[in-house]
Amino acid sequence: MKKKNPFFSLIEDFKMLPGVGEKTAMRYAVHLMKENKEKVMKLARDIIDIKEKLKLCEECGFIKSEDQCEFCSNEKREQILCVVEDIPSLLAIEKSGVYRGYYHILHGLISLDDNDEVMNRIVALVNRVKRKMFKEVIIATNPSVEGDATAFYIKEKIREVSDVKLVKITSGIPVGGIIDMMDEITISQSFKYRLEF
Amino acid sequence: MKKKNPFFSLIEDFKMLPGVGEKTAMRYAVHLMKENKEKVMKLARDIIDIKEKLKLCEECGFIKSEDQCEFCSNEKREQILCVVEDIPSLLAIEKSGVYRGYYHILHGLISLDDNDEVMNRIVALVNRVKRKMFKEVIIATNPSVEGDATAFYIKEKIREVSDVKLVKITSGIPVGGIIDMMDEITISQSFKYRLEF
Repeated sequence: MKKKNPFFSLIEDFKMLPGVGEKTAMRYAVHLMKENKEKVMKLARDIIDIKEKLKLCEECGFIKSEDQCEFCSNEKREQILCVVEDIPSLLAIEKSGVYRGYYHILHGLISLDDNDEVMNRIVALVNRVKRKMFKEVIIATNPSVEGDATAFYIKEKIREVSDVKLVKITSGIPVGGIIDMMDEITISQSFKYRLEF
Repeated sequence: MKKKNPFFSLIEDFKMLPGVGEKTAMRYAVHLMKENKEKVMKLARDIIDIKEKLKLCEECGFIKSEDQCEFCSNEKREQILCVVEDIPSLLAIEKSGVYRGYYHILHGLISLDDNDEVMNRIVALVNRVKRKMFKEVIIATNPSVEGDATAFYIKEKIREVSDVKLVKITSGIPVGGIIDMMDEITISQSFKYRLEF
């Protein structure tokens, strides 16, 4: 079979997805070959649509479909800013309903290999905090080494230009979690930040 | 954000892929949002192409792009038939170069929940063996409970109509494998089918 065949080309395409290697890409391609044509065409159309109809908001970094960002243009939201690592974090926080302020997506974390996108997002964040009067800035990066390093770096940078209230979300045992399954750092954190109840 | 947004629609689409749940689907969608537009458009085009330009060969079950199947129409191949579970199995066997006969893809295995497609493929296989003069039929289903049950069922069905030479590929320790990492059944099989050398 000629390698120009779209089946083999599709296997190569799928390998651009995070965590997808040759075997998984092939399973996906085989599945689509046999799947209902209408469903597969809808997948292709939606892929085209996200590139043609959507873009990322220059302010918060979330996806927007019209000219206005649904978060940034909503004046009813609280004057609080929550800094997150990525789009899934934002969606999870929104879904929890615990927070109704504005967002700032970093699209990554500071890491050993230079990440210009994240650095630009941090510069934009600092400018945003300087420009707008937020009552509070919540850093909600994931509690990993890189997440904490990024949080610390952001704190330093914001402190250079503003004395806004700066907080970080708590680390601890997740609800439903089992203490003896947790790593020592998580246990230490949940003791360190223990609360009266 | 309205749920009609192609971003959320795409997350739903990705969930049709085998082993892909909400989180993975979201990671894929976010990745495509940020990926180079040209690459993403090529992915969409290839998805459309496999549905519009390719189909499965009625005879062997492999993908064909023109009217003729590259295997079934190739008269230079040996008059042997190899029965495999799926397209990836066929590609792996072809890649090994050990086999140059014809193929018959089952597109699955016999399982507890009725699988009409597989049953139809087995009927087609039996007809094919009755119709054509193969020197040998090699059953190359994966050595699992369902793979062995399917192989056994096929053997019975072929025996009803033909006395063609029927063989099954060997199970044993894979080359580079470590004996004490293997399960007992694999070890037993490699002893049972031991060869003089």
